[in-house]
Amino acid sequence: MSISIVTGDGKRSSERAEAFGDRLASRTAGMKASVLREILKVASQPGVISLAGGLPAPESFPVDFMPELIAKVLKKYGPAVFQYGPTEGFPPFREILAGYLAERGVKATADEVIVTTGSQQMLDTLGKVLISPGDKVAVESPTYLGALAAFNPYQPNYVAIDSDDDGVIPESLEEILAAGSVKFVYLIPNFQNPSGRTIPADRRKAIAKSVIRYNALLIEDDPYRALRYEGNHLPTIWSMAPDNVVHAGTMSKVLSPGLRLGFSVAPALIRRWMVLAKQGIDLHTSSFDQALAAEYIAEGYLERHLPRIVDLYRPRLRAMLDSLEEFFPDSFSWSKPQGGMFVWATGPEGLDTDKLYAKAIERKVAYVPGQYFFSSPGVGKNTMRLNFSNVGEEAIKTGIKTLAWLMAEASS
Amino acid sequence: MSISIVTGDGKRSSERAEAFGDRLASRTAGMKASVLREILKVASQPGVISLAGGLPAPESFPVDFMPELIAKVLKKYGPAVFQYGPTEGFPPFREILAGYLAERGVKATADEVIVTTGSQQMLDTLGKVLISPGDKVAVESPTYLGALAAFNPYQPNYVAIDSDDDGVIPESLEEILAAGSVKFVYLIPNFQNPSGRTIPADRRKAIAKSVIRYNALLIEDDPYRALRYEGNHLPTIWSMAPDNVVHAGTMSKVLSPGLRLGFSVAPALIRRWMVLAKQGIDLHTSSFDQALAAEYIAEGYLERHLPRIVDLYRPRLRAMLDSLEEFFPDSFSWSKPQGGMFVWATGPEGLDTDKLYAKAIERKVAYVPGQYFFSSPGVGKNTMRLNFSNVGEEAIKTGIKTLAWLMAEASS
Repeated sequence: MSISIVTGDGKRSSERAEAFGDRLASRTAGMKASVLREILKVASQPGVISLAGGLPAPESFPVDFMPELIAKVLKKYGPAVFQYGPTEGFPPFREILAGYLAERGVKATADEVIVTTGSQQMLDTLGKVLISPGDKVAVESPTYLGALAAFNPYQPNYVAIDSDDDGVIPESLEEILAAGSVKFVYLIPNFQNPSGRTIPADRRKAIAKSVIRYNALLIEDDPYRALRYEGNHLPTIWSMAPDNVVHAGTMSKVLSPGLRLGFSVAPALIRRWMVLAKQGIDLHTSSFDQALAAEYIAEGYLERHLPRIVDLYRPRLRAMLDSLEEFFPDSFSWSKPQGGMFVWATGPEGLDTDKLYAKAIERKVAYVPGQYFFSSPGVGKNTMRLNFSNVGEEAIKTGIKTLAWLMAEASS
Repeated sequence: MSISIVTGDGKRSSERAEAFGDRLASRTAGMKASVLREILKVASQPGVISLAGGLPAPESFPVDFMPELIAKVLKKYGPAVFQYGPTEGFPPFREILAGYLAERGVKATADEVIVTTGSQQMLDTLGKVLISPGDKVAVESPTYLGALAAFNPYQPNYVAIDSDDDGVIPESLEEILAAGSVKFVYLIPNFQNPSGRTIPADRRKAIAKSVIRYNALLIEDDPYRALRYEGNHLPTIWSMAPDNVVHAGTMSKVLSPGLRLGFSVAPALIRRWMVLAKQGIDLHTSSFDQALAAEYIAEGYLERHLPRIVDLYRPRLRAMLDSLEEFFPDSFSWSKPQGGMFVWATGPEGLDTDKLYAKAIERKVAYVPGQYFFSSPGVGKNTMRLNFSNVGEEAIKTGIKTLAWLMAEASS
């Protein structure tokens, strides 16, 4: 039994800090405090060149035409944008998304589109609906940390699909599916977070065949598709296996991550359960933000604004790849993405990028040690994720030069 | 094994509708399709007087000064409102909420306030962090349906606390806590949904004493507090047991439910785990919507606008109570709330408000049969929830008169 102690100044005794620890659910232990979070906190200190985060550039946000867009939204929809709305999403937004998704070969009606509070919520919702404790979930190696954070509370066991410079190796996936009982497969096929890798068309075909052959369910998370600075768009896996794939996108990279707008198309039964789960999770996503995004696409703002974002990021990616080429030691290799927000660098065996992080911070440069992106402990200690979207070209050059100096020192 | 069948017009075979049913998590069965949802769908048909939903009146939304408020937000915060933000909430919003909560005796620093995507997400997050399958959760009888929807996926067993016209009976709660092993207690002390009941001050004191005595954790969900049309505010349970209570509020009734903004203050360890869980759930709540709400409070809009909302609802409540008095049969009793959005009517034993619903809809009036608000099946068949916030006085009178006629016919 515990007694409430309130001191004169209203502060509660520090002995209360751990109160109710005995009340936590068994699943809660799996929600580890993210080390990455601490890293990002340090990285955001003033004066630090941060190649650590995964933030879009603030100058990519459409602040200039936002008042005009908002005025249109208020005039068109009136009080409806402030009212409760359907769990599935704001109807005009779902309507416009159906057309937007068709451009990538995801042919769905408005009724087949679900809006989520960021694509993070798509991951949570699917985890909730699909994962029983101990279920197998197949993920890339490395994989997106936010997906692990979403799935972990449902207590899955991860199976790592082998990857190379072209992303997931189809034979590895085939083998895993053949072994059976995988609840679902989770992939980011374009400019993956963290590796920057893109799965080529022939591999996508092989992956689609495998999931159809084994009647598997695959989550195709596609946040970076629009951020392509070179080359041509590749077909979505959904377009090759529509009955087996949940295809998910987001407004975070083409409008604003602060609005928290994701969308997905899923097999009918999965979609129905996702909607039911979302009802209990947050009822629905902000009607107002959905209306903004609907008009952003419908009125042609997206079409006009996207080239500005692409033109902003293209030279940053170039600056990073050029600087790596110029400064990084020969013992390193790195991904050469045609888009997205990240480059993935791999150093010599024995390098520990986690240990090196403290030294990098001393020299005012931040990155994310790669090991945090692997579902198995101890893997990827010689890797690092480098973000180029949130830093100007000069700073990227300085940052990479500084890291190169540290890496050379460490591996010499 | 299943084969993908795509017909010429792109429609997929209906045999796919149930595909992946074998893939669902064991918890998913607990997420029943809400009957209420179907009821509300019917209720929202044109021409129906709906006393069914729980919607604020559209004319209560601050559409008139929204462009001005948004201009201020964009000028003050710039691109930050479109960027990723902290999981805990947009710092200026947390700051202003700390002051807002102090007015109700919830003395917290900005760091102690968590913003959630509606208070629905507070319920989901707490369920996720606290409930292991089979855990006991104590709820009012009747209780808020959205809370059951949030908790059900975590598979609790509910214990119903006895209530009378003054809400929860403290002795019943005491007995339940004495029996032990209750994970938490969930209450709406002001103008409860669905019953409209308010727990008086002396009962609040007794409840606070009980939770302290048994070191219990209590969720005080307080969405309707500001919607008081008569009488004085009562002390929050938090103010009497700050170390044992999660106090939660919302902007849904005083600004807009469409923005999905809830907030809560919780014991330190619970708060830390809530933040960690929310990271995996949706990263954070819309930065833009949080900034709007922050300025809405900070710039005095709330203070000026709230009286307009209260003046809009006060005569609607009056119209409902007067109509019930005038038209309803003597065999009925009903709650007489001083605020909120709902009145709860109880008919004679043997009445089945669920069966009567079809007849009411034929006569173009909708309500919610009360049985859906009980955690135990078969209870409350003679009860109904009547909403007065979303319908004008004349329609309320017509609706109640029509229902009265049906009730009299049914019980005669």
